[in-house]
Amino acid sequence: MHSPHDASKQNAIDMAAARAKTSINVSAVRDFLYNGAAQWQNRERVSKILASDPLFNKSQRPFLTRKELYIRGQALTNRLDELAETHKWTPEDIQLAFSVVSDEGLPVTLHNIAFEPVFHLQASPELLSQYGDLIAKRGILGCYLQTELGHGTNVGRLETTATYIPETREFEIHSPTLTSTKWWIGALGKTSTHGVVQAKLILPGGKDVGPHLFFVQLRDTETHQPLPGRVLGDIGPKAMAGLAAIDNGFARFTHVRIPKSHMLSKFAGVTDEGKYVTPPHAKLSYGGMLYIRSGMVTSAGWLGAKAATVAIRYATVRRQGTLDPASGLESQVITYPSLHARLLPILARAYVFIGLGRALSRSFDALARDLSSGNTSQLADMHVMTSGLKTLVTTSSIQDVETARRSMGGHGYSAFAGLGKLYADTVPSATYEGENYVLDQQVLRASLKTFTLIFGNPAASPADKAKLAAGLPGTSKYLRLLLDPSLRPPTASFTPVDDVVSISTTVISLLEWRAAGLVKEAAQTHKDGTPDATATQRVAKAVTEAFVSARVGEMIGELPVKLGRGTREAGVVGKVYVLYLLTTLESALVDLLSFRLYVTPKAEAESTADPVRGLRLAIGQLCKELLPEAIGLTDAFGYSDWDLDSSLGVYDGRVYEALWARAQDEPLNQTEVTEAYEASIKPMMLRGRRTAGASAKL
Amino acid sequence: MHSPHDASKQNAIDMAAARAKTSINVSAVRDFLYNGAAQWQNRERVSKILASDPLFNKSQRPFLTRKELYIRGQALTNRLDELAETHKWTPEDIQLAFSVVSDEGLPVTLHNIAFEPVFHLQASPELLSQYGDLIAKRGILGCYLQTELGHGTNVGRLETTATYIPETREFEIHSPTLTSTKWWIGALGKTSTHGVVQAKLILPGGKDVGPHLFFVQLRDTETHQPLPGRVLGDIGPKAMAGLAAIDNGFARFTHVRIPKSHMLSKFAGVTDEGKYVTPPHAKLSYGGMLYIRSGMVTSAGWLGAKAATVAIRYATVRRQGTLDPASGLESQVITYPSLHARLLPILARAYVFIGLGRALSRSFDALARDLSSGNTSQLADMHVMTSGLKTLVTTSSIQDVETARRSMGGHGYSAFAGLGKLYADTVPSATYEGENYVLDQQVLRASLKTFTLIFGNPAASPADKAKLAAGLPGTSKYLRLLLDPSLRPPTASFTPVDDVVSISTTVISLLEWRAAGLVKEAAQTHKDGTPDATATQRVAKAVTEAFVSARVGEMIGELPVKLGRGTREAGVVGKVYVLYLLTTLESALVDLLSFRLYVTPKAEAESTADPVRGLRLAIGQLCKELLPEAIGLTDAFGYSDWDLDSSLGVYDGRVYEALWARAQDEPLNQTEVTEAYEASIKPMMLRGRRTAGASAKL
Repeated sequence: MHSPHDASKQNAIDMAAARAKTSINVSAVRDFLYNGAAQWQNRERVSKILASDPLFNKSQRPFLTRKELYIRGQALTNRLDELAETHKWTPEDIQLAFSVVSDEGLPVTLHNIAFEPVFHLQASPELLSQYGDLIAKRGILGCYLQTELGHGTNVGRLETTATYIPETREFEIHSPTLTSTKWWIGALGKTSTHGVVQAKLILPGGKDVGPHLFFVQLRDTETHQPLPGRVLGDIGPKAMAGLAAIDNGFARFTHVRIPKSHMLSKFAGVTDEGKYVTPPHAKLSYGGMLYIRSGMVTSAGWLGAKAATVAIRYATVRRQGTLDPASGLESQVITYPSLHARLLPILARAYVFIGLGRALSRSFDALARDLSSGNTSQLADMHVMTSGLKTLVTTSSIQDVETARRSMGGHGYSAFAGLGKLYADTVPSATYEGENYVLDQQVLRASLKTFTLIFGNPAASPADKAKLAAGLPGTSKYLRLLLDPSLRPPTASFTPVDDVVSISTTVISLLEWRAAGLVKEAAQTHKDGTPDATATQRVAKAVTEAFVSARVGEMIGELPVKLGRGTREAGVVGKVYVLYLLTTLESALVDLLSFRLYVTPKAEAESTADPVRGLRLAIGQLCKELLPEAIGLTDAFGYSDWDLDSSLGVYDGRVYEALWARAQDEPLNQTEVTEAYEASIKPMMLRGRRTAGASAKL
Repeated sequence: MHSPHDASKQNAIDMAAARAKTSINVSAVRDFLYNGAAQWQNRERVSKILASDPLFNKSQRPFLTRKELYIRGQALTNRLDELAETHKWTPEDIQLAFSVVSDEGLPVTLHNIAFEPVFHLQASPELLSQYGDLIAKRGILGCYLQTELGHGTNVGRLETTATYIPETREFEIHSPTLTSTKWWIGALGKTSTHGVVQAKLILPGGKDVGPHLFFVQLRDTETHQPLPGRVLGDIGPKAMAGLAAIDNGFARFTHVRIPKSHMLSKFAGVTDEGKYVTPPHAKLSYGGMLYIRSGMVTSAGWLGAKAATVAIRYATVRRQGTLDPASGLESQVITYPSLHARLLPILARAYVFIGLGRALSRSFDALARDLSSGNTSQLADMHVMTSGLKTLVTTSSIQDVETARRSMGGHGYSAFAGLGKLYADTVPSATYEGENYVLDQQVLRASLKTFTLIFGNPAASPADKAKLAAGLPGTSKYLRLLLDPSLRPPTASFTPVDDVVSISTTVISLLEWRAAGLVKEAAQTHKDGTPDATATQRVAKAVTEAFVSARVGEMIGELPVKLGRGTREAGVVGKVYVLYLLTTLESALVDLLSFRLYVTPKAEAESTADPVRGLRLAIGQLCKELLPEAIGLTDAFGYSDWDLDSSLGVYDGRVYEALWARAQDEPLNQTEVTEAYEASIKPMMLRGRRTAGASAKL
């Protein structure tokens, strides 16, 4: 009898064949994604050191309790710190190392991205000179205490008080109610020695001047015991076992005194007598939040990159369903349109967000320079932009991780597939750093404000309006379309799909028309007091997608410089960007169709009952063209098997062997007969056999 | 100084006030949902016994390892069995008890819903008489072994073989490859003594006659050790810690012999000599799958009910943002349209799915009677219907649980909120019992077949077509709209929103027009060989939603009988059903707009640039009208705090106290100083203090 075909052996053949089919130079695209070969090599160097350290082995992670994961996380942090010393890592190397292990969700992350930046931005020079170095070297560990049991995004209503006592030149930090308990604070539960506390400042006489920041020691720096007046602890496990290694914590303060100098007073302060010193640039303090939000775009890109790599690799080696005539085997599932039309847009969003995040970081650096010289002119627009982007990228990357996981069918639900953990760890990003629905309101409000500025005065001349429009910030450029009543949206034509520049121009224009139409309508319904329930979300999305698509247009324009004019790589990445634009347009169809902004070419309109068919066929064709490049485009993200920690995303494609191997480590498999047998299973079966009676022959 | 307002005290006041506002008789609606007072009382009686048993306490569940959860699950199962004996529960009571503890995810569920029904439906009378009682009393425990490492939904390509050996009148069960390993089998890993194995039947001479079912003993009924030739184990943890208590397992068979009589041979068999006996009604064996799928509609309803109860209760007591002029407090978040417009549709889907599931069970019982008399005329339509419904209800209930969780902002991400676990446990339902994308293809195929039957013959007379249309099965009724070219969709008008019957008629008709339009277009593009990538999903959704909306129309018609003509309850539940219809219509807008099937009343079209504004305003108004009933409508689901296991969904509204209390049990809080301190945190900080140097005064 002949030996049966073993799909597990086919895995490696299929992966090698797919890799051989890629026409792009993978390392050229990888260097492009990493913004230069040097950056990639740095990551590679740091990453290899971590990956080869046994402590950073991830294989037993799914079997540990939360407490064990917390303890392991601290051991990893300490080891990373030791490695930094051993290998003389630069601060950039250390930052890189932390980003490489970001999937561990280490408590120290909160020290690095929340506590330290806020402290640096807002501490007085004296406080900075006293604690800056200690914080930078992690000689003390900190957290940022903002949200409370009773209040989150609405910072203005936080209840914790900081009452100034002129007699002793101290502040008294106090939690007056149960709901004023600080809650959800990352690294507070068991780790931090210090924290920056948001509390409303109460001046002598009882005047409340709103929330301000205070540097408060939490634990003894020798014994690690909470200092008097602090009740500290961990708030318990997170949904879906997310972020298990982080000790999100609570804190209650009972009349805790701190010296006056421990107020973070760079932008606001109190005189010795207790007079409030008005901050010269109150808005400067927003800088830290903008910094965190702009980093979220890049993170979302690399997160989507992981999901795309795993799911596309698995779909390449998984064979199921109809027979492929060429091989006589079942088809690789990635060849099904229902599958690749889900996965390739995820890949496209990853490429776009990585590029967009880089552009945004540059804008943020420029803003920071402006702010340090007291120039706040760009702050409002940057605020709107980061609010909209934060919502857009978190919403879509959360969904992309889950779409990728479900695309892997049954095996996608195994913890060893790796994407379930990514989802659980990422899903709170819809809420933290500004709840997405609340941020949408801010985008709406800013958009209406700009609209009213230009169109609110019926007596304004066209020339006046045009002048106002010329000065429109980046997030409002689409409003220019409403100035000339003779302007019309372009015809929605997307053939040939090869014409990257022409298609992208059309899509960007359509998305700008959509933003303009929605904002105009929203201005009217808000004036009438009759907005509908979803208007805010639709306007914010439209405005942000118009902005992003225009940036993508610029990124397409830069490709010849970055990847070489006329190269295969520039061509393929250009198509990836266009896929992003076309699928964004598809998701905007309700708006475009209902506002009658979507006009199909005449020939198309006559040949089909469905005017959006042309768009969908263009997406389908683009996906088919990109399909042979899919493995190359994901390899270019540069993730190792250790990075991905996924049995289904292994580089060599041998997914079945990987699943089998990992299952053997399951604790339930360490004894052949479970201890539940004698305790529960056997008694129940014996009872059943007894009642089933004599007929029950075994 | 006056005592500050404590939001945690306000919680109970807000909840009591909301409850007082409800105008409906909650127990009347509850009895309606439970299909009669007797059913509710039965649930209450069984549920109280379980809830008061300390073993069924859920408070420590979030802190247990998977292994501990498995062992606990078996102890619960044994205890439930003891309670059944003690309280002399009927089989219906026992079934009720299992449904009450469904959130525990017990392995025995697979015995109850997969192993036993398949065995009963397909075992020969002899095998049934030998094992039927034992199985019913759980004197042996079983599982259903279908999917393999290499194959899931595509049953036809399973690799496990069952070779008939005429000499000994035995079958030899064998796993020829790694990928033929049975994988994902619930309750196989550590629990089951027996199983029903899907294997392809090989006759003497090597002829493969495809997959059949075999009853195979797996473990010794005394020692629980695997029998020779079986390698058994657990496949490891699931994504997001889902279904942790279930031992999804693997099995490899090495030339395992079973007696010929252990083939499940009710519908197919082998003679002693090894000749295949063709089944008289091959399709009869689908019955079991249809049974499981029809149960999924009801489950989805009650799952949505849990999510709605928790999220609506929390939104009622959470106050945040703008000040409510009446109370001087911040507004209850449920009053924000962005929130209640997300939550009330979830409530509506729960009401609809509960009613729909009941109707479907009745249809299934009728089908089972038909099948047992050999009548398969309704089987094909029932197959399409359950395929479409399974995809529709799992997709939307998964999304609803997650939407409800995210609506609760930061606290929704706490494990104590309860909805994270529901999501993790439910999300595989998109894949099991038929992968949703594959089921969509079956709906599409069946829809095209019916379309072609009526419209495929250009020579057919209108009378012929009409005759064919008169016999259309329930899932294809919408095709009648295409028979008379003079028919036009109704005007999309939804005022006044009180006119439940008129609005529902309009929506149902529009959804049928959409199905007709999409199927007609799909028939054309499939003929041309140019379907787009998402056509299958859109057609399947359109066809299923047309069917469901028509059923909802019938449910609205039954309300006067079930809840009394002109009663407050019938009025409110009617509006809940209409909310379902309107939001379904909103989600169908792209199709309706692109096919030009959506025509707004003239006055509306002239007053706004946005023709779908009328629909959105109607949804908004309906939500506002239902808002005062929201707590009553969720109370009517009858869930206790023990059922919900959610700090945010507590009946009395005291959510902050509940969160605080549960956090105190967190294992990390059992020592003030973590053991990670001496091991890792301190060494790192000391290194940092050293390098920070002399300036580092603490």
